[in-house]
Amino acid sequence: MKEVNMKKVKIEEIIRFLSEDVQRIEGKYENLWINKIASYCNAKKNSLDWINHTKNNKQIIAESSNAKVLIVDDSVKYTELLKDQNKVLIYVENPRRIVAKIGNEFFVKKLEKSIHFSVIIDSKATIGQDVYLGPNVIIGDSIIGDNVIIYGNVTIYDCVEIGNNVVINSGTVLGADGFGYEREENNGLVKFPQIGRLIIKDNVEIGANSCIDRGALEDTIIGEGTKINNLCHIAHNVKIGKNVLITGQINISGSCIIEDDVLISPNATIRDHIYIGKGAHIGMGSVVTKNVPAGETWIGNPAKFYKKKK
Amino acid sequence: MKEVNMKKVKIEEIIRFLSEDVQRIEGKYENLWINKIASYCNAKKNSLDWINHTKNNKQIIAESSNAKVLIVDDSVKYTELLKDQNKVLIYVENPRRIVAKIGNEFFVKKLEKSIHFSVIIDSKATIGQDVYLGPNVIIGDSIIGDNVIIYGNVTIYDCVEIGNNVVINSGTVLGADGFGYEREENNGLVKFPQIGRLIIKDNVEIGANSCIDRGALEDTIIGEGTKINNLCHIAHNVKIGKNVLITGQINISGSCIIEDDVLISPNATIRDHIYIGKGAHIGMGSVVTKNVPAGETWIGNPAKFYKKKK
Amino acid sequence: MKEVNMKKVKIEEIIRFLSEDVQRIEGKYENLWINKIASYCNAKKNSLDWINHTKNNKQIIAESSNAKVLIVDDSVKYTELLKDQNKVLIYVENPRRIVAKIGNEFFVKKLEKSIHFSVIIDSKATIGQDVYLGPNVIIGDSIIGDNVIIYGNVTIYDCVEIGNNVVINSGTVLGADGFGYEREENNGLVKFPQIGRLIIKDNVEIGANSCIDRGALEDTIIGEGTKINNLCHIAHNVKIGKNVLITGQINISGSCIIEDDVLISPNATIRDHIYIGKGAHIGMGSVVTKNVPAGETWIGNPAKFYKKKK
Repeated sequence: MKEVNMKKVKIEEIIRFLSEDVQRIEGKYENLWINKIASYCNAKKNSLDWINHTKNNKQIIAESSNAKVLIVDDSVKYTELLKDQNKVLIYVENPRRIVAKIGNEFFVKKLEKSIHFSVIIDSKATIGQDVYLGPNVIIGDSIIGDNVIIYGNVTIYDCVEIGNNVVINSGTVLGADGFGYEREENNGLVKFPQIGRLIIKDNVEIGANSCIDRGALEDTIIGEGTKINNLCHIAHNVKIGKNVLITGQINISGSCIIEDDVLISPNATIRDHIYIGKGAHIGMGSVVTKNVPAGETWIGNPAKFYKKKK
Repeated sequence: MKEVNMKKVKIEEIIRFLSEDVQRIEGKYENLWINKIASYCNAKKNSLDWINHTKNNKQIIAESSNAKVLIVDDSVKYTELLKDQNKVLIYVENPRRIVAKIGNEFFVKKLEKSIHFSVIIDSKATIGQDVYLGPNVIIGDSIIGDNVIIYGNVTIYDCVEIGNNVVINSGTVLGADGFGYEREENNGLVKFPQIGRLIIKDNVEIGANSCIDRGALEDTIIGEGTKINNLCHIAHNVKIGKNVLITGQINISGSCIIEDDVLISPNATIRDHIYIGKGAHIGMGSVVTKNVPAGETWIGNPAKFYKKKK
Repeated sequence: MKEVNMKKVKIEEIIRFLSEDVQRIEGKYENLWINKIASYCNAKKNSLDWINHTKNNKQIIAESSNAKVLIVDDSVKYTELLKDQNKVLIYVENPRRIVAKIGNEFFVKKLEKSIHFSVIIDSKATIGQDVYLGPNVIIGDSIIGDNVIIYGNVTIYDCVEIGNNVVINSGTVLGADGFGYEREENNGLVKFPQIGRLIIKDNVEIGANSCIDRGALEDTIIGEGTKINNLCHIAHNVKIGKNVLITGQINISGSCIIEDDVLISPNATIRDHIYIGKGAHIGMGSVVTKNVPAGETWIGNPAKFYKKKK
């Protein structure tokens, strides 16, 4: 099978890129190259291996790795054995963060900014600079900021305002009407008007097949830097703060307020009009029916207090 | 940022439209206009404000609103203060219902009935009058009624029959095969034929990215006036009655029967072959493993009886 | 309304097709034909009816069926009454399996292998023989095997490898980036590189609107013969074995290992890095926070041991 990421990258190039992040280097790295970043157990000769600072047996990992080059912190010693193995150790403060930096620079494919010919854009829409709009994207009477990436098959309705540096994955639907029905005396259902906006601030990233509805009479707002995973449902009038992590299949009902830095674990459900305080954590599969104070972790169905952040 | 809904609507026009819904009017409304309907705390001078009849402090809300014109019920008095503020009070029986009526008439964008050039329709399909089919809609060998709205990126397989006045939001998939596999003695999985229809009756509305499967040997049926929110999964052979409210991320497994007027709260899961009686309510995040009698509320995992409707 | 499946099939043709699966036949079947396979209670004169071997009252079902022809096992007697009714009984070992075989052969529509003109394929992609690619399918720099069926509006990113005889339903998104973010000291979120592959082995079938992410530094793998239903989320680095049944709205977080023949019931949530042993069963709506040994059934939130397979 086809191997992904078979690009060769010279160690010298990586060291130049890392610059001051490198504390020191042991071993001869001239003319060495890598074609892959290793995961914890699949390193080959030309992988770049790395040792998370949280591991216990770092010295053993370094000495038994198949890789020639490793990113480590200073708790790993450059032993005679490592020297005999001709291994190169690149010392940094936080190996995981540095590996992310290397991967993002050298191995993540750069999208060419372009608008695919099949994209359908409303004549009243405003599209920013340097955007990538993938095949079959549909954009209504809405505003798209600069440097935005929208993958194929995304649908954006009217009255959506998207900031800069936003990423939206395939199949996601933004700005559809919220689910607002009034039951009449004859049990018929009458729709309440859904005429607010959906505002998505800068640096937000949204996974695949998620749905974020427009507001009813006010706006739905997703705060700066917030990340939303696949298959999430965010209902009308919800206000989400900055740098919130919303993992897979989360359900946030109408008019909730989620403050900055909250973490919501997979498949949690939040009742409408709930307030979740700054930095709170909602556990996996929780069903939240009460307000959650800042810094607290709640879990279960129904969700209850579990612990408080120190 | 661009303001949505900046259309000006004259109060006189609204009063003419409401006609007999208006009980009486206080204040001079000639030449006044609005450009927005207020939500509970964001009223500006030219918003139409309104006071829900369930509120306690209606008089205070009326007197402190920034809006010139308010929709109220007769428990709000037209005080000297309101008069001095030159406020206009339009008296109706149910302000929330009247606001919905005004919003739907004046502020909800009317879709122009049309079939986008990118729509792909099977040559054996039947399409009704006055439909809106958005970009990239795919329709198999199926039947679409009159006055149906199907937003972009919806996929309709074969053997789907959709009534009149139905609305389907983007990303929804109708009529895919149900999940029917038999485990063989060697642990292999053989597919059971999925050859029934999916029948969607008049006035049904379906959210974004939901999935409703065709029947196996019988039909899947969604009853008249039923509303389904985003990211719901409705499996093969399910029969849903009239005016049922199915909120976000509901999972209804195969062959369930859901009677009229049921309410299913977000992220509930219903086991296959379950019967839910008329007017029952299934709580948020519930996991229903037993039949639920009419008029009862069940909650929890597993769901248990909670209360009975009076 | 239009009737689906109105094709006429002669009983003689069915008997010829079944060949050695038929143990014996009672009654005169010459010139008889069917146009439908009956479900348990909707048989008409020209339906093919059948009696599941698990039923108690098989003789009564046979004698009261409206159908002329029934597939039965040898516990049903060909009584005088059945004879007087001119009914035809086709005896087989497992009626349900035989009905599946007949349905799949005569009533399931055969897709013509073809690539719709609207399909968008990356110039570096490899596409196998005899594939069906429906309207608006998007395929990145990926590999598609032989005899693969991909319904309309599916999105496949780069670095996805799909084996032979795979079926993917509409709206599904394969190979998007996993959800990997590191919280920095200033609470900002930095993305960890997502550069692994998504590998889908032969005979896998995937429902509508599901999402399976590519790996981060390793690969995400879906094993041979595994079936995945609608609206499932399978995160980066997950390894799923052979013939696993993943029902609707399942959430499998990053780096889980699911062994062969596991059954995961609807709307279950599996925490990241969890191991689920061969043949285990995870109950509906369960929230799995611990490893599950082979052959065990776990249920609840949080999931606990319920029983062990004999």
